[in-house]
Amino acid sequence: MSVDVTYPTRSQLAAFLALDPRKRIELLEPFLTDERLAMLRSKLSRRTKRLTIALENIYHSQNASAVVRTCECMGLQDLTVIENSSRFLANNGVARGASKWLSFHRFNTNAVNTPEAYDFLHANGYKIVAASPHTGHDVSLYDLDVTESPLAVVFGAEKVGLSQWAMDNADVRMAIPMYGMTESLNISASVAIVASHLRRTIDQSLPPSLVALSQDEQDEVLSQWFLASIRDAQSVLDRVLSL
Amino acid sequence: MSVDVTYPTRSQLAAFLALDPRKRIELLEPFLTDERLAMLRSKLSRRTKRLTIALENIYHSQNASAVVRTCECMGLQDLTVIENSSRFLANNGVARGASKWLSFHRFNTNAVNTPEAYDFLHANGYKIVAASPHTGHDVSLYDLDVTESPLAVVFGAEKVGLSQWAMDNADVRMAIPMYGMTESLNISASVAIVASHLRRTIDQSLPPSLVALSQDEQDEVLSQWFLASIRDAQSVLDRVLSL
Repeated sequence: MSVDVTYPTRSQLAAFLALDPRKRIELLEPFLTDERLAMLRSKLSRRTKRLTIALENIYHSQNASAVVRTCECMGLQDLTVIENSSRFLANNGVARGASKWLSFHRFNTNAVNTPEAYDFLHANGYKIVAASPHTGHDVSLYDLDVTESPLAVVFGAEKVGLSQWAMDNADVRMAIPMYGMTESLNISASVAIVASHLRRTIDQSLPPSLVALSQDEQDEVLSQWFLASIRDAQSVLDRVLSL
Repeated sequence: MSVDVTYPTRSQLAAFLALDPRKRIELLEPFLTDERLAMLRSKLSRRTKRLTIALENIYHSQNASAVVRTCECMGLQDLTVIENSSRFLANNGVARGASKWLSFHRFNTNAVNTPEAYDFLHANGYKIVAASPHTGHDVSLYDLDVTESPLAVVFGAEKVGLSQWAMDNADVRMAIPMYGMTESLNISASVAIVASHLRRTIDQSLPPSLVALSQDEQDEVLSQWFLASIRDAQSVLDRVLSL
């Protein structure tokens, strides 16, 4: 038997998200197999917000999608997307469905949204690290201290790099050590190097309790993953929301 | 004063490459500024063949170009390209001219060229490491022994991955540790993670004499870099080849 894939309506989604995450989990759990539940909980245990990536003005959809896949593969739950002049379009074919397992924080309502995004990251306890191949830097990727505070690494657009404001207002400017004539990595390559190295360093340097999501964060993410795992979401939400 | 960019003719190139590399260097050196010479020699000192990347059937030109840039930035001089059913087109705009600083080894004359490429790598002393996210693996990237022998890491095409023959005939199958639901990194992300980690590990684990190019290899590469650095190569080769 095959089931049609349907997506929640806007009003269903609003009603569902208004519920407490634990209630959402309780409502949707019966619609998932034990195997699926075990897999989701196992992946959830490796999720972290201790490291996060933020992107300013990325415009190539292939790069955007590669970054989404990298964050997903490295277990980085949050992705902050700053859209000043460009729209971030994660092509779903290229992202291979990775985007539905991440929590996006998009800043795109003003002409320039980088200050608002920095405020958001700072308010959430992040030290902001500007990835900076082109200009002066304070520290090498391999000398970043991951124990002091959670890190948000911000990457700039293809070719032009980070805006001057983003560079000036970061807490630290970091470079990936390079050896070549060109010294210009593709954005997807840069994010992959930074995310894989720092994820590994965090796991090696910090107790699991500081790496993993808090219980509240886990509930929130799991409830969203449950919804993303259900094929005929419209019918299912109809049933559970009327209970 | 601006000088037109010209490229050597086929016969000029053949005549030039027939010369001993030291002779080529001697002939072209007067056409480069002291600053340029110092820069090229400095970059040359960080080049290595101790680690190399091989690609089987990569067909997206954007991925091909990103890999070229990554190898160049990480100082990996050689890039082996196996073209069975697909042509490897490193789009020059995306590769930002990185390709002219690398030594390519292309295998594309037969219907299936992977065995010939493996023979070439083995004959050059490489242990062949198959990058394998999808199937069983023997070792994690982070447990690879870089001290035992030079490593050639082979990556397969987008979506389908390495051919069965390439997997079966590698000396070891290696996986990049992942934490996510999708477990499928973009090829440019995979190469970046592997190249940056192994380059760093090699620098940390081996004496510089085992990492750097041999004197003969340095002469060969420098003579090619000299040629790539000259704008009006046709006139210059005309002059020096008639000496």
